[in-house]
Amino acid sequence: MIITMQFGASQAEIDAVCSVIKERGFEPLVMPGEDRLAIGIHAALSPDDRIFLESAIGSLDGVSKVTQTSSPYTLASIEFHRTRSSVAVKGVVIGDGRFTVMAGPCSVESYDQYRASADMVKASGASVLRGGAFKPRTSPYSFQGLQEEGLQIIKQVGDETGLVTISEVMSADMVEVVADHVDILQIGARSMQNFPLLIEAGKSAHPVFLKRGPSATIDEFLLAAEYVLNQGNPNVILCERGIMPLDRTYTRNTLDLAAVPVLKEHTHLPVIVDPSHGTGVARYVAPMAKGAMVVGADGVMVEMHPDPKKALSDGSQALDPAHFNSLMKELKALATATGVRM
Amino acid sequence: MIITMQFGASQAEIDAVCSVIKERGFEPLVMPGEDRLAIGIHAALSPDDRIFLESAIGSLDGVSKVTQTSSPYTLASIEFHRTRSSVAVKGVVIGDGRFTVMAGPCSVESYDQYRASADMVKASGASVLRGGAFKPRTSPYSFQGLQEEGLQIIKQVGDETGLVTISEVMSADMVEVVADHVDILQIGARSMQNFPLLIEAGKSAHPVFLKRGPSATIDEFLLAAEYVLNQGNPNVILCERGIMPLDRTYTRNTLDLAAVPVLKEHTHLPVIVDPSHGTGVARYVAPMAKGAMVVGADGVMVEMHPDPKKALSDGSQALDPAHFNSLMKELKALATATGVRM
Amino acid sequence: MIITMQFGASQAEIDAVCSVIKERGFEPLVMPGEDRLAIGIHAALSPDDRIFLESAIGSLDGVSKVTQTSSPYTLASIEFHRTRSSVAVKGVVIGDGRFTVMAGPCSVESYDQYRASADMVKASGASVLRGGAFKPRTSPYSFQGLQEEGLQIIKQVGDETGLVTISEVMSADMVEVVADHVDILQIGARSMQNFPLLIEAGKSAHPVFLKRGPSATIDEFLLAAEYVLNQGNPNVILCERGIMPLDRTYTRNTLDLAAVPVLKEHTHLPVIVDPSHGTGVARYVAPMAKGAMVVGADGVMVEMHPDPKKALSDGSQALDPAHFNSLMKELKALATATGVRM
Amino acid sequence: MIITMQFGASQAEIDAVCSVIKERGFEPLVMPGEDRLAIGIHAALSPDDRIFLESAIGSLDGVSKVTQTSSPYTLASIEFHRTRSSVAVKGVVIGDGRFTVMAGPCSVESYDQYRASADMVKASGASVLRGGAFKPRTSPYSFQGLQEEGLQIIKQVGDETGLVTISEVMSADMVEVVADHVDILQIGARSMQNFPLLIEAGKSAHPVFLKRGPSATIDEFLLAAEYVLNQGNPNVILCERGIMPLDRTYTRNTLDLAAVPVLKEHTHLPVIVDPSHGTGVARYVAPMAKGAMVVGADGVMVEMHPDPKKALSDGSQALDPAHFNSLMKELKALATATGVRM
Repeated sequence: MIITMQFGASQAEIDAVCSVIKERGFEPLVMPGEDRLAIGIHAALSPDDRIFLESAIGSLDGVSKVTQTSSPYTLASIEFHRTRSSVAVKGVVIGDGRFTVMAGPCSVESYDQYRASADMVKASGASVLRGGAFKPRTSPYSFQGLQEEGLQIIKQVGDETGLVTISEVMSADMVEVVADHVDILQIGARSMQNFPLLIEAGKSAHPVFLKRGPSATIDEFLLAAEYVLNQGNPNVILCERGIMPLDRTYTRNTLDLAAVPVLKEHTHLPVIVDPSHGTGVARYVAPMAKGAMVVGADGVMVEMHPDPKKALSDGSQALDPAHFNSLMKELKALATATGVRM
Repeated sequence: MIITMQFGASQAEIDAVCSVIKERGFEPLVMPGEDRLAIGIHAALSPDDRIFLESAIGSLDGVSKVTQTSSPYTLASIEFHRTRSSVAVKGVVIGDGRFTVMAGPCSVESYDQYRASADMVKASGASVLRGGAFKPRTSPYSFQGLQEEGLQIIKQVGDETGLVTISEVMSADMVEVVADHVDILQIGARSMQNFPLLIEAGKSAHPVFLKRGPSATIDEFLLAAEYVLNQGNPNVILCERGIMPLDRTYTRNTLDLAAVPVLKEHTHLPVIVDPSHGTGVARYVAPMAKGAMVVGADGVMVEMHPDPKKALSDGSQALDPAHFNSLMKELKALATATGVRM
Repeated sequence: MIITMQFGASQAEIDAVCSVIKERGFEPLVMPGEDRLAIGIHAALSPDDRIFLESAIGSLDGVSKVTQTSSPYTLASIEFHRTRSSVAVKGVVIGDGRFTVMAGPCSVESYDQYRASADMVKASGASVLRGGAFKPRTSPYSFQGLQEEGLQIIKQVGDETGLVTISEVMSADMVEVVADHVDILQIGARSMQNFPLLIEAGKSAHPVFLKRGPSATIDEFLLAAEYVLNQGNPNVILCERGIMPLDRTYTRNTLDLAAVPVLKEHTHLPVIVDPSHGTGVARYVAPMAKGAMVVGADGVMVEMHPDPKKALSDGSQALDPAHFNSLMKELKALATATGVRM
Repeated sequence: MIITMQFGASQAEIDAVCSVIKERGFEPLVMPGEDRLAIGIHAALSPDDRIFLESAIGSLDGVSKVTQTSSPYTLASIEFHRTRSSVAVKGVVIGDGRFTVMAGPCSVESYDQYRASADMVKASGASVLRGGAFKPRTSPYSFQGLQEEGLQIIKQVGDETGLVTISEVMSADMVEVVADHVDILQIGARSMQNFPLLIEAGKSAHPVFLKRGPSATIDEFLLAAEYVLNQGNPNVILCERGIMPLDRTYTRNTLDLAAVPVLKEHTHLPVIVDPSHGTGVARYVAPMAKGAMVVGADGVMVEMHPDPKKALSDGSQALDPAHFNSLMKELKALATATGVRM
C-alpha cells in the first residue's frame, strides 16, 4: 500500500499517517518525491488490514491518495489459485483447453420454438443450450419472458435432448427455482453487482455464469466473481459481453476482446465471449466469435433462433439456422487449424 | 416510427416491410432518400404496436434500422402528465419549487453515530436523513452494513427526531422489511435495472428514490422509473449521482449536471443530485451542490459524518460537521438570492 | 516513483530494477506487499530522471507497472506557481476573481452579421467577442468559415467596438496571421494535442485559450497547457467544453463542471466553461452558464447569433438576442448575490 | 431526412418546417406519430441541400431533432464506390485480400537501431517498415523524435532494404518534407481531425494512413477520410488503434475489433489494426493481431524494437525480436489455415 501525500503536506500530517500505520503494527517507509512525499507499507497485509488502513488513512488531512499495490481479490486470482480451473456439468467441461459453444434463442417462446432450437444446437455439435425464461428488459412494455412456464420448457427440452442448459436468474429469491430447472445459473450484465444475488448464487451447487456489466472495470468484474467464490461455490464462468459503446450507431456495445487475455493473466476462471450482445448485430457475430477463439477465450455464447424474424426479443442479433450452422463449421475449421479442442 | 432501408434494398424487401405495416393496420409512407429509402408510419401507435413492429421489421432483410420518433416511456413523461409532480412524506414536500437537502452518513454504524448525525442534520435545517443499513460494496471484504440492526436504528432515530428517513433496498424480497423501518425506499445506481426490485417497489406505498446507473442513458433511466410507475406507485424521485468517468484520477464519477435540465424537459418527476457519489471527494461537494441548485435540481443528497476519519465506508467523500454546516449556510444564502424556497 | 512487480517476480528481476535505479544515482526502497512487491524511489527526480526511469524500468521482466507519485506537469501546476495567474488583454482581465463573458457567433458570416453580434455583445456588458474565421468541421461539405476574409472582419469589428477578440487557429503555420488580426488565439478541442500548434502558440505574445479535448484526462489537458507555457508564453486560459457523451440523444457532449474545482486545485491558470458546445442545445446554455459561475469558473464562452435560424453553423446551440440578454441579466444578478465581480 | 417535432408543436410550427422544405424545392411528408409528429422529405438530396436544410430547420421553434437517413460521406462509402479499393506502393499491395504486416520501432532512435529493426522486419517477411521521426508526445518533456534527422535515416534505410516506409506527419506544412523521405504518410489518432493536415495530405501523391481518434465515431472517422479523398487522393488506408478505455488499469486503450466488420460494411477502403497502441502491452499484441486477421482486417501495424528495454518511447508495448518473429510465424500459420494471402 502506497500513500501519496498532497504537495506541501506538513510534518504533522505525515506523522499522523505514520502513526496510524504503526498502531496497526506495520512499519511506514517514508519516500520524499519530486514534488510530494509518498509513504509505503513494508508488509503483507490481510484484507482486513488493507480495508482498515485504506479507510483510516484516506480521510486524514494532507493525504492525496491511497494506492493498493496488491490485488483486491484473492479467490478469483490466478496468483492465489495457481492452476486454471474448469467447470464440469453433466459431462461437458468448460475451460481446460476446450472451446465451448453455448447457443439458443434469446427467449424461450414456446415448447416448439425451444425444442426446434435445441435440435439445431445439438445437431451442430454445440453442447450448451441457452434461453431466457425471466428476461430483463429495458422497457416494462417489452416481452418479459414466459417466466415459470419457460423454466419448465427448459427443463423438459434439456431432459429430452441431453443438452446442458443455462438460463438467467434475476434475483436472490429466484435462485432456488431456477436451479431446479436449469444446469447453469446465468447472472446478467445488469445484475453483475446485484450483491444479494451473487451471494445466493454462491451458496448454490450449480455453476454460475457471470456476465461483465457494461461499465465494469476488470477489478469490479473479478470482485463480483469473488462474491460468488467467497460463499463456497468454486464453479464460476466469466463472460465478456461488450462494454458501453462510444458509438451506438452501428453496434449495441463495444466487444472488448482484449479483456480475454487480460482476464487470463489475472484469473484462473474460464472466460466466454458473447458476440451477440457484444455487437447486437447478427452479421457481426461470426467474425467476432472467431476473434474470440484466437484471442484465447474458452468459448462463445451466441443467440440463434429458428426464425429470427418472428423472435419476441432481440431478433436483430440472432443467427438464423443457416448462418448458425455456417458459424459452427467455421469455428470447427478454425479450431482444427489452431490446435483448439472443440 | 421510421424504417431506414439499406442502400440498394430491393423492391421485394421494401414491399415486405410495407406489408408487415399494412397487416398491423397502418399505412406505410415510402420516402426515397439521397442514397437509401426510408419508410414512415403515419399513425399513433400503441406501445404494443410499437414493440411488435420494431421486432417484426427489425430483422427483415434489407432493413438498416428502425427509429422510434416517439418517447419510449409515457407515465414518466411530462408530455403525458402535463404538470410537474411532487412527493410528500410526513410533511416534507420534494419538488414543487422547494430545494430539499437529504443528508447523513454513508452507513449506519451505531446508534450513537447515527443519532449524532441526525441531530446535526436536523439542527442544520435539512429535512431528510440518509444512512445505509444494507450496503452494496464492490468487494465482499468491505463493511456490508449493520443490516437488520441498522434498520432498527434508522427507525428509532427517525422516530426520535421526526426526520424523514431514506435507506437503500437491494432486492425485491427486502422491500417489505425496509419499508417497515424507513420512509423513502432508495434504489441504488447498481440496482437501477434490477427489474424485480423496481416492480416490487412499484407495489409499495412508500416513495421510491431512484438513482441513475453509471452507464444509463436518459431513456434507460426514465424507463426504469416507468417500471415503478407502471405498478401504480406515483411517488418516484430521480437522482443524478454521476456517470462513468472518463478520468478516474481526480473524481470517482462524472457528475452530469446537464442531466437536470434535460430531465426537467422530459419528465414531471422531481430530480435530486448527489454530489458526494458524483465526485467522491468531500472538498468538491459544496461547489457541485450549489451547481445543482442553479441548474434547477429539486435538492441534493449529501454524505456527512460526525467524524469522517472514523467512517466505516466512503469516509473520503463525507463532509465533517463544520463543512456540512457551512454548506447548508451557503445553500440557504444562494436559495434566497435566486428565489428558491429552502 | 513506485514500481509494482508482478506476483511471483524473481529475486533476479527485483535486483535488475534496483540496479537500474542505483545506476541512475538513486536509492531503491524495497517493500514486500500482500501478494507482490513494490519498489519506491526515495528522491526528488527531475523530469529527465523520471522519463528515463519510467522507460528503462517499464519494459523489464517482472515489472507490473510504474506509477508516478508526482505531478507530470510543473509550469501549469499551482504547487509550482503558488499564486493564481490572470490574463490581461487590452484592459480586460481574465481570472483574478472576475467572471468574464466571451460571446459571439460560431462563425463570422459577413461584416453585417458580425458587427450586429458585436453590438449586442457590447451592449450586454460582455467584454470578449468570439467568432470563427477558420472552422474545424466534421464534414468537408459543411461551411468552412470565411477564412482570411473572416479574420479581416474580426479585426475591423474589434477595432470599431473596442471589444477584445478571440478566434480559432487550426495549425502552426497560421498562428502568425491569426495573431495579426485577433487578440486571443483559440486552440480548439480537436487540436488540444496538435503539438506543433501548441509549440507555435507558445512562441506568440498573444494569450492562448486552450479547449479541453473530448477524451482528454485532466493530466493530458494540463500537459497540453504545459507545451504552451514551456515555450515562454505564460498567458494560457483553460476551457472545459464538454467531454465525450455517454448519451448523444439529448446533448452533444457531457459538460464536466466538476473539472472546474479539480482544475482550480491543481493549476493556477484561469478556467472558462463553454456551455454552448458543452451541451449543444441553446435552451440548456443558461442553466449551465450559471452552474459554471457557482462552481468557481472564471467565466463562460457562449454562442449567440443575431438570428440563429439563419446561422451557417451550429445554429441549434446559439442563443438569440433576447435569450442572450436574459442570460447576461441572470448572470449579473447571480454574481451580485454570490459576491463575484462581473 | 426526417424532422421530429416536439410534443405539442403547433400547426404554425409544423407549417414553418414544411415551408422551408418547399422553398428548397422538395415535398414534405407529414407523419403524425404516437405522441409527436415527424416530417419526412421525399427526395434525393445533394450534400448542399442536406446541410442547408439541417441548419435551416434545426433551429426552428417546435423542432425536436433532424435525423439524416443517408450516409454523411460519399467518396468513402462502399455504396458509392461499389468495389473495394486497395493501395499499391512500390510493389506492395494493401487490401485486395492480402494481410499486410507493418512493423518497426515506435521512434527512429539512430541509424543502427533503425537498420537493425529493418533487417528483422525484412527477414520476417513483413513488407512495410514503420518508425516515427516526429513524435506526438503527451508531455513536452518526453523524447520528441529525431525529427529531420529521423526522416533521413528512414529514407536511407528504406533505400537500402527496399522496404516500403511509413512515418507520421503532424502538420500541414510538414507534408512535403515527410513525403520526400517516406512512402506512406501516417496521420496519427490525435490528428484525425486536424483538418488542414487532412486537406494537405489529400493533395499529396502519397498514400495516407489515417488512424482513428480515441473518441471518434465511425462516421467521424469516415468523414476524416472523406477530407483526404475529396482533395483527389484516392489512396487512404484506415487504422483502428483503440478507443478511449473504460478501464485504464490493464490496457492503454480499448481495441475495437468489431470496428473492422463495421467499416468493411460501410467503406471500400482497406482497414488495418494496430494492436500495439490498441492495448499498450507487448504481451497482448500477438492475440489481438491474430484476432484482427480473423475479423477481416487487411493487416496489422505492430511495434517491435531490437531491445525494448532501451527504447526511448513506448518500450512497454514493443515486441522484442524473439516475440516479433514468433508472431510472424503464428500469423502466417493462421493465414494459411484460414485462406488469407500473406
